[in-house]
Amino acid sequence: MTAVKISIIGAGSASWSLTLIKDLCLTKGLWGSTVSLMDVNKERLDMVDNLARRYASEVKADLKFEKTMDRGETLTDANFVFNTALAGGHENYEIQRKVAEKHGYYRGIDSVDHNMVSDYHTIGGYNQLRLFLDVAREMEEICPDAWLIQTANPVFEGCTLLTRESKLKVVGLCHGHLGYKEVASVLGLDPRDVTFQAVGFNHCIWMTDFRCKGENVYTMIDDWIENKAEAFWRAWRPKYHEMDMSPAAVDMYKTFGMFPIGDTTRSGGWKYHVDLKTKKRWYGPFGGFDSEIGWGMYLNDLRKIMDRMFRVSNDPTTFVTKEFPPVKSGEQHVPIIDAIVNDKEGTFQVNIPNNGAIEGIPDDVVVEIPAIVNGRGIQAVRVGKLPRTLMLHVMLPRMLRMEWALEVFLTGDKNLLMDILLNDPRTRRPEQAEAVIEDILALPFNKSMADHYR
Amino acid sequence: MTAVKISIIGAGSASWSLTLIKDLCLTKGLWGSTVSLMDVNKERLDMVDNLARRYASEVKADLKFEKTMDRGETLTDANFVFNTALAGGHENYEIQRKVAEKHGYYRGIDSVDHNMVSDYHTIGGYNQLRLFLDVAREMEEICPDAWLIQTANPVFEGCTLLTRESKLKVVGLCHGHLGYKEVASVLGLDPRDVTFQAVGFNHCIWMTDFRCKGENVYTMIDDWIENKAEAFWRAWRPKYHEMDMSPAAVDMYKTFGMFPIGDTTRSGGWKYHVDLKTKKRWYGPFGGFDSEIGWGMYLNDLRKIMDRMFRVSNDPTTFVTKEFPPVKSGEQHVPIIDAIVNDKEGTFQVNIPNNGAIEGIPDDVVVEIPAIVNGRGIQAVRVGKLPRTLMLHVMLPRMLRMEWALEVFLTGDKNLLMDILLNDPRTRRPEQAEAVIEDILALPFNKSMADHYR
Repeated sequence: MTAVKISIIGAGSASWSLTLIKDLCLTKGLWGSTVSLMDVNKERLDMVDNLARRYASEVKADLKFEKTMDRGETLTDANFVFNTALAGGHENYEIQRKVAEKHGYYRGIDSVDHNMVSDYHTIGGYNQLRLFLDVAREMEEICPDAWLIQTANPVFEGCTLLTRESKLKVVGLCHGHLGYKEVASVLGLDPRDVTFQAVGFNHCIWMTDFRCKGENVYTMIDDWIENKAEAFWRAWRPKYHEMDMSPAAVDMYKTFGMFPIGDTTRSGGWKYHVDLKTKKRWYGPFGGFDSEIGWGMYLNDLRKIMDRMFRVSNDPTTFVTKEFPPVKSGEQHVPIIDAIVNDKEGTFQVNIPNNGAIEGIPDDVVVEIPAIVNGRGIQAVRVGKLPRTLMLHVMLPRMLRMEWALEVFLTGDKNLLMDILLNDPRTRRPEQAEAVIEDILALPFNKSMADHYR
Repeated sequence: MTAVKISIIGAGSASWSLTLIKDLCLTKGLWGSTVSLMDVNKERLDMVDNLARRYASEVKADLKFEKTMDRGETLTDANFVFNTALAGGHENYEIQRKVAEKHGYYRGIDSVDHNMVSDYHTIGGYNQLRLFLDVAREMEEICPDAWLIQTANPVFEGCTLLTRESKLKVVGLCHGHLGYKEVASVLGLDPRDVTFQAVGFNHCIWMTDFRCKGENVYTMIDDWIENKAEAFWRAWRPKYHEMDMSPAAVDMYKTFGMFPIGDTTRSGGWKYHVDLKTKKRWYGPFGGFDSEIGWGMYLNDLRKIMDRMFRVSNDPTTFVTKEFPPVKSGEQHVPIIDAIVNDKEGTFQVNIPNNGAIEGIPDDVVVEIPAIVNGRGIQAVRVGKLPRTLMLHVMLPRMLRMEWALEVFLTGDKNLLMDILLNDPRTRRPEQAEAVIEDILALPFNKSMADHYR
């Protein structure tokens, strides 16, 4: 039991704050530690702080809480820093998306590239990457030995940027790989019997191995596709985020030769995403996570969680643990700290520089791979070769788009911003791309982005 | 003076046959040699053979000529094999292009990818790549020690395929780099005073160095763009193939940071090619080489040359040298044989496997680079790094498309054919891509292509 200081930047976020706080409270190995909550929104910060203190007290967790709106303060003496913040929040991204749709960019300027997942940030992500880099620069000054656990998207672009531009210990974490549970359930397997290896880039990972009690799950998937998939899809009523056994996932498997998992199924090429009707065909009645329906439901869910958190926070008579039961989330974020701090070895799904783990990917590109984590830190499993088709049609094109995003972010070269959009399947004419760039840069919250791109 | 056997496959081609024959006749170092002319078109073969014999006799060149319609015969005892053949000829490509245009693929299914140059062959090039490989297989049987000088396009795809799939000595040759002369002329320089280094992939080469009597030509180009380009373009009346100082070339230079040369200026992204009006804006009144006007002029020029060759061939009273004066062409094709056979060292612009010449390009990808050629063979100049923007926005995307073309050609996987078209900026809906593929495969001359793609 070692006392450390854990900072959460963007602690007011609906998706992450409570999950992290619950898991911290339920991890005895970290008791005695200080959890520093930081957010730019005072109201949310106060609310989360209120919930955190009450939660800890209810489960008798020995944790100290601090709250601050000052980044420098939260970073002081920090050992671990979660960056969960989305610059400008979903509100700004929705505004940006609307501007882009006006110019024919269905689902926004960043729902593009090899896939059409909403959080690509290739063009419109300036503010977010700027925030990532600002946090890193401040950590280099204030807590250069701390771990930066990059939780907010884009994890692939962000972690590659951060590991190239700073000397900090950086790891990116996501939960998309947990989609294997959905595959297991649909196949009638107990997820606890299943082992797997998922490899690639964040939001672009592929099942290089998939077993259940020693049997090859791929054989079962093949059988399911052959004999049961059609009937399954006819009766299918998925939630918007349930896409692991969608027609899109199966089509990607057929095309690229490996099964995609988690957020990976959201991508796979614009042929699944060209309009709502197409999305519905591939992702079920809501058109999946990244349709106007699915994304609307997601934002609505976020609002509902937030409302509930405020409600509980405003009602001191409720038990927080009654509303948010004391069960570990299954996320890796807190266990990985426990593993490092207390030398509790475990295998985690991490985003770190490749350094030879996947053949044919440069060393300084961040990949998502399994790694052994313990007191020594994070040591990647060497994965080796991915199939050639997957490399040529998925991995390398995706990597190029990441490189374009970082290059244009670092150089501020507007010509290159234009060149990226010219590679967007929705760009019909060069003037359309010019116009959308101008309109995005003219948004009030993109002022520093507009100053940057010349 | 060493006697060798030089075979020309596709000797009836308008673009290459006479050029090669003239240069062979005018290269004394190769006298005593046998030139074997091979073509599947008897009429053209007889005509070229007639011209070749008369030409040699008029300039008193000591060369023996053979003609054959049998590939095995021309390859027997060959030391050098030129492959100049275009499977199915321009006629078939025009038919294929029309089918593609019906489906919204302006200028044809292969005028796509990073650029819109006509001879990309990514999808429709099956017959051509098949021919390349068939020739190579036969050479391995019949003349495994001969040099294969790949002259027909696609040189980039073809040479990468051949050097991976066979153990032959393969080199690809082109003449696009001679475009430096046009740049020099426009700048008012004597091309004989100019030195340069052009590096990249075939049809995608960039001036990494450009000097005139020790002065940097880039400085002069910058000055020309600043002060003279607008006036020049206003008065500009280029031939369809004169594009080296076009607005497109200058725009590519501004975007990617290096000056493109030769066929490279035909590419550079679809923003220059989206329709005829756009092509005219960037390439002058005819819309450049790859517009319906420019390409029509080119095919017409080929027909005119062919007619003239037949006319001279049918008139034994004409001096062939009067019609086709005995001046060396300036092409590298024959001099490179002279260099190898007679150890006459020279620097040539060749297409050979990278093997470390350009950083960041895999060893087994064919690059276009300068090389020292002499009795030892071909030894590449190690070029080093290209600028990052050029690598990310031009070289790597172009390389990926080459890899897609070879993979789909080798695997016959129709899904991947589809995936390539989904990356085409002109594909609006997946059904459009499916339909054009079916129609292309249904063409009578694509029967073996249709059998291959399943």
